[in-house]
Amino acid sequence: MIKRNTIQVKVGDVYVGGGAPIVVQSMTNTDTADKDKTVSQIIDLWQAGSEVVRITVNNEDAAAKVESIKKTLRDKGCNVPLVGDFHFNGHKLLEKYKGCALALDKYRINPGNVGRGSKRDDQFSTMIKIAINFDKPIRIGVNWGSLDQELLKLMMDENAGRVNPKSANDVIKDALVRSVIESAEYAEKLGLKKNKIIVSCKVSDVQDLITIYEMLAKKCNYPLHLGLTEAGMGTKGIVASAASMGYLLQQGIGDTIRVSLTPEPGGSRTQEVLVAQELLQTMGLRSFSPLVTACPGCGRTTSTFFQQLAGDIQSYLRNSMGTWKGKYIGVEEMNVAVMGCVVNGPGESKMANLGISLPGTGEVPVAPVYEDGVKTVTLKGDNIANEFITIINNYVDRKYKKIND
Amino acid sequence: MIKRNTIQVKVGDVYVGGGAPIVVQSMTNTDTADKDKTVSQIIDLWQAGSEVVRITVNNEDAAAKVESIKKTLRDKGCNVPLVGDFHFNGHKLLEKYKGCALALDKYRINPGNVGRGSKRDDQFSTMIKIAINFDKPIRIGVNWGSLDQELLKLMMDENAGRVNPKSANDVIKDALVRSVIESAEYAEKLGLKKNKIIVSCKVSDVQDLITIYEMLAKKCNYPLHLGLTEAGMGTKGIVASAASMGYLLQQGIGDTIRVSLTPEPGGSRTQEVLVAQELLQTMGLRSFSPLVTACPGCGRTTSTFFQQLAGDIQSYLRNSMGTWKGKYIGVEEMNVAVMGCVVNGPGESKMANLGISLPGTGEVPVAPVYEDGVKTVTLKGDNIANEFITIINNYVDRKYKKIND
Repeated sequence: MIKRNTIQVKVGDVYVGGGAPIVVQSMTNTDTADKDKTVSQIIDLWQAGSEVVRITVNNEDAAAKVESIKKTLRDKGCNVPLVGDFHFNGHKLLEKYKGCALALDKYRINPGNVGRGSKRDDQFSTMIKIAINFDKPIRIGVNWGSLDQELLKLMMDENAGRVNPKSANDVIKDALVRSVIESAEYAEKLGLKKNKIIVSCKVSDVQDLITIYEMLAKKCNYPLHLGLTEAGMGTKGIVASAASMGYLLQQGIGDTIRVSLTPEPGGSRTQEVLVAQELLQTMGLRSFSPLVTACPGCGRTTSTFFQQLAGDIQSYLRNSMGTWKGKYIGVEEMNVAVMGCVVNGPGESKMANLGISLPGTGEVPVAPVYEDGVKTVTLKGDNIANEFITIINNYVDRKYKKIND
Repeated sequence: MIKRNTIQVKVGDVYVGGGAPIVVQSMTNTDTADKDKTVSQIIDLWQAGSEVVRITVNNEDAAAKVESIKKTLRDKGCNVPLVGDFHFNGHKLLEKYKGCALALDKYRINPGNVGRGSKRDDQFSTMIKIAINFDKPIRIGVNWGSLDQELLKLMMDENAGRVNPKSANDVIKDALVRSVIESAEYAEKLGLKKNKIIVSCKVSDVQDLITIYEMLAKKCNYPLHLGLTEAGMGTKGIVASAASMGYLLQQGIGDTIRVSLTPEPGGSRTQEVLVAQELLQTMGLRSFSPLVTACPGCGRTTSTFFQQLAGDIQSYLRNSMGTWKGKYIGVEEMNVAVMGCVVNGPGESKMANLGISLPGTGEVPVAPVYEDGVKTVTLKGDNIANEFITIINNYVDRKYKKIND
């Protein structure tokens, strides 16, 4: 896996690209004009692990609140970089609300939603000049749902005149990439430094995303904001995001990621942050919280005790991480195995930092525990869960260097 | 994406490898000796879309029930191929329970759990000979939690004598692959035909799985059963499976897949089948049921109506597929967009078969509907969900050829 050599961009205090760890980001779904709800959700996302948070700045009411949102976040000790998402009226809002322009740590500009015809360049350059004045980075964020229709028409016409015309879908992909690159280059021509530009080019189809980001990675060295747009709800959104982004990340493509999940009604917005972290961690790219390796169970593990324990330990580790990360170095890399029977239980447990191999149906009702590959104790009886948690706590305290040491 | 050229193996009536569609499979977690529960879960998995179902055959009680399980399934119209999972005592069970050996459509043999020392080859060859006699395919299924320890020790010793020894982790990977290949070749030497052998080599780490399956794909042309073992619970198991298997499938590696999720206590076993289907479908490899493209929502879409509609439509499509698949050709490929605001709503809706672009906060409260890229109607009022479902039904009936036509 070779990390592509992109230019490094600083967003607030967070570095994106140029060999920096891949940044996890998210976006609120509260009305930005509702300051209390927005502040509260930004803090939730930040505490869940979102290292950059985007908010829509869709109208004057929203723009008028951004400065105060930022101040309240700072007062509460939350210094997460804040990105403003602009469409259609970004030039007006950024010009009128200087406090907003100053408070934001990055502007997302969608070249397809900047304005039509002769207004396009003027309105784009208004935003770029504000970014230059306030020394802010931008993202040129193209999305196939809002692709610049004038550019597309031009390219479709060019294509029609070819001896071997491409398919319409291929022309759309070319247009998406061209829209990003030309807009970024135009921003540079207007005076914005190269190290102030992040780009993205989101589509909702897995194969298209792969093709487009491979093209982008070849054509430019701006840091890439990677995400599958409109991924959808439930496991479908998670699966499509992990497959497409995983494939690209494995090739070193992607400097910051956002997982765009549609929440279930009442569902937490923070799920997309968790999924982004799990993607990076299971791929070995970053570590955030200890993970549990657990077998799926089969006819050998018919009691639900094993499922219960795997779930309890996963929750325990995640909840403990809040305390542990201020106390121990490297504990987020710990791997704990909770296995259901003798087939792969001892073997998998030996290969984890800490593992417990529960007895399957018909096996002797004992649960050997392994620490760093060595069997240290065998648990039995009704208190296995609590005893294993004590073992985890002791292991963590013994194994990981304390921050104040 | 180039599909690797593997030999085709027939499992029951299902073809695996050799250009056949990638097969979705699953495994029960009921006690096989409990016939009723096992039959019921096999039917659930099959109805959810599992094209092959594996059951553990872990003891005499289980082996004694297999023939009757198979018969009852047939009586109920379920002809899903049944695979027996054997460890430690497979040679004894297959020899003693001929009805079981005959009823199963494939035997899974784990070379690490066949027996130690001099017994190993005898017990392995007993199983292979039964497979030959009953004309059954096998899977040589290696798992790093139960890797042949004698082979590993031998290879660790060989490695220690090298000028530049490999890391222990690399030796384990080499040993896993060698165990698979040598066992498969030994089965062939015993007389089992090449087109009766499927292989797998499962580990629980994403990067290790990628490395090992890339090695396997280079070293043999047996069809590959692909899966991340012990993936774990919740989104972590889904993310890790989709990232690792997605990466390999994208390279044409993998002829049949199983997603090994630990169910939540009380959770359905069929979730792993759904995730496997979603992985194949979102990657464009197969289609099973219409999917919904939905945006994640943001501060422009503050009502939960949009989330509710996306969820309702996804459920409606999945539930309707049961009827539709007996009635319409190709409807499983349909893509429906449910979008939350004007930014990407009309654009994404135009690119789906059928799309609805709901109004964001502050927008005019109307929802244009697009069919094959053309706006056909604009919905408003309190009955949008039902009206859109009627539009879906009409579209399906008009667009997809009827099976009896």
